Amino acid sequence: MQANRARALLARAPALNGRQLEALLAAAAGEPERALKARIARSVALAPATREFLASPDESAIERDVAWLAASGAAIVLYGDPDYPPLLRQIPDPPAALYVLGSVAALATAQLAMVGSRNPTPAGRTTAHEFAAWFARAGLTVTSGLAVGIDAACHEGALGVGGLTVAVCGTGLDRVYPAEHAALAGRIRAQGALVSEFPPRTAPLRRHFPQRNRIISGLSLGTLVVEAARHSGSLITARLAIEAGREVFAIPGSIHSPLSRGCHQLIKSGAKLVEETADVMSELRISVSKEPLTPRRSDAAQPVALDKEYEMLLDALGFEPATIDVLVARTHLPGESVASMLLILELEGRVAALPGGRYGRMS
Amino acid sequence: MQANRARALLARAPALNGRQLEALLAAAAGEPERALKARIARSVALAPATREFLASPDESAIERDVAWLAASGAAIVLYGDPDYPPLLRQIPDPPAALYVLGSVAALATAQLAMVGSRNPTPAGRTTAHEFAAWFARAGLTVTSGLAVGIDAACHEGALGVGGLTVAVCGTGLDRVYPAEHAALAGRIRAQGALVSEFPPRTAPLRRHFPQRNRIISGLSLGTLVVEAARHSGSLITARLAIEAGREVFAIPGSIHSPLSRGCHQLIKSGAKLVEETADVMSELRISVSKEPLTPRRSDAAQPVALDKEYEMLLDALGFEPATIDVLVARTHLPGESVASMLLILELEGRVAALPGGRYGRMS
Repeated sequence: MQANRARALLARAPALNGRQLEALLAAAAGEPERALKARIARSVALAPATREFLASPDESAIERDVAWLAASGAAIVLYGDPDYPPLLRQIPDPPAALYVLGSVAALATAQLAMVGSRNPTPAGRTTAHEFAAWFARAGLTVTSGLAVGIDAACHEGALGVGGLTVAVCGTGLDRVYPAEHAALAGRIRAQGALVSEFPPRTAPLRRHFPQRNRIISGLSLGTLVVEAARHSGSLITARLAIEAGREVFAIPGSIHSPLSRGCHQLIKSGAKLVEETADVMSELRISVSKEPLTPRRSDAAQPVALDKEYEMLLDALGFEPATIDVLVARTHLPGESVASMLLILELEGRVAALPGGRYGRMS
Repeated sequence: MQANRARALLARAPALNGRQLEALLAAAAGEPERALKARIARSVALAPATREFLASPDESAIERDVAWLAASGAAIVLYGDPDYPPLLRQIPDPPAALYVLGSVAALATAQLAMVGSRNPTPAGRTTAHEFAAWFARAGLTVTSGLAVGIDAACHEGALGVGGLTVAVCGTGLDRVYPAEHAALAGRIRAQGALVSEFPPRTAPLRRHFPQRNRIISGLSLGTLVVEAARHSGSLITARLAIEAGREVFAIPGSIHSPLSRGCHQLIKSGAKLVEETADVMSELRISVSKEPLTPRRSDAAQPVALDKEYEMLLDALGFEPATIDVLVARTHLPGESVASMLLILELEGRVAALPGGRYGRMS
């Protein structure tokens, strides 16, 4: 198989998740295509739809995908590839493949998800824009869903200060949804990335959006909900963030505003109340320089500065691999803090996750 | 000594707290006045100011107090008296004496403290009034500090629906502070109680107000902060509530409103976010009838209905005294819930606190 065609085939396989793909590739190493097909046909770990597709792929669809990839400059990142986003790798149901337009490197930067209502109040929109601009200047990548309302305000806020921003889409990347965001999508591609797990020509089906939300929260250290009604999609993103062990943040508002209801519900359930950007930064234990960063080019993602607790954690780690429990005992930091700090250090390339739940220092 | 004069004397003793008064009265039982005075002069457990005053009391002040008590109809409730408020009895520094104008029985009802800014927003004032009216109709007594702004709106809200309300004052009860609240104080006296630990003719000294706040929170099952700036007196009341092991509630607002800053700070520190009255009721584990109660007369305090968890706790208690630890093990409820539920049941006269930290069922 041609490498591009093989990647396009695997990316299009329905109902295949990252861990299944990894097992499949490990089993297939060195096997001729015929033996691989026989193995796939026998595999009980795969969904019938996946097995069927891999046994007799839709060649014309794959051909069109390969042509689109070449024409658009999109990349496919597979689970197991070195540039698969490390935080996304750790969620309960990681996608097998991501289609990416723009900077693949942006997906490995420290990200804050910012989401909210498609019909925000004017004040909510302004807050989203201002907070996103601040986070972007502080060196965080702002990740959202390209929707109208709060999502768009967050992308715009980051773009306006020359920051990085990632849009996770609920359609194939050969189209923009909503169509009115074509220009915005173009700017995001140039100053970050457009990402989707859905193959080209996938329409904006209603059920894709909650599924897409797990990628928004999964790419990110935490998820900040700016304004959200009760029972809204933003609360799904927040729930998925919690399931992935990430922080959830919410901005409060008047008890008479229906668009604060969702945020208040989250705070009641344990989300951190955010009044100012410092509330997020302190919770993520990220320190930032007092001086705002100058606008950056799309590929010049700078690591955020690490504070004393990170240095302490690295010291506690030493150069002998250790488990989280051991690190908790050595540092007296809460277990969940150690876990999230290790994620960040892993992103920075300063520690590596090793077999047996241990972590090793890389620098 | 005449009974009234003796009570007026003890109530006026400076720097004397409830526990010291109780020890003093226990030691004095049956002793002639001369022996008592000698004992007081020797006591190291009393502050020098207390000892000095008790050894040679200001007779003319006491005479004026006795005359004022008779003329005004005020009562003195001493720590150890059967009508000393049971929740107040349990705070770290209970007052030795309370002067009360109005219904002493109101002090033993289930109370919610509502406090906030003296300069609220119009929306904050409306919220205070509406919430207080709702709580009063649901059978809770609304306790506050008679100040302008949120305090007054809370008293007014309770009064408007014929509910009970208690005002804890930072001056002697022979004066009203602020003076513009004379009519309001009159209505509170008629439909609840005015309370102070300060003897008659005590001026509104600045330092009295934080001290007064411990009585507001100490009388109450919980304290709800409606609107408060950072570093405001309401936050002192909230801190005192926490120190007394009571619930703290706060109403959120716009992140741009300085009067929401204090509430947000409380929520960040663990206070319960309150969007609607049900948030308070569920946390206090009090269920209310769906039908609003009809307006009540000032002395007809009705016990609030108990929900299933209370029945479960009473069942777990059985008729053999048990400690909180035992009750936690039997009910699987959190320790702090059991403690606060026992407080409420004690108020209801359904359980009694016994020596050795045990509780016994009374009905």
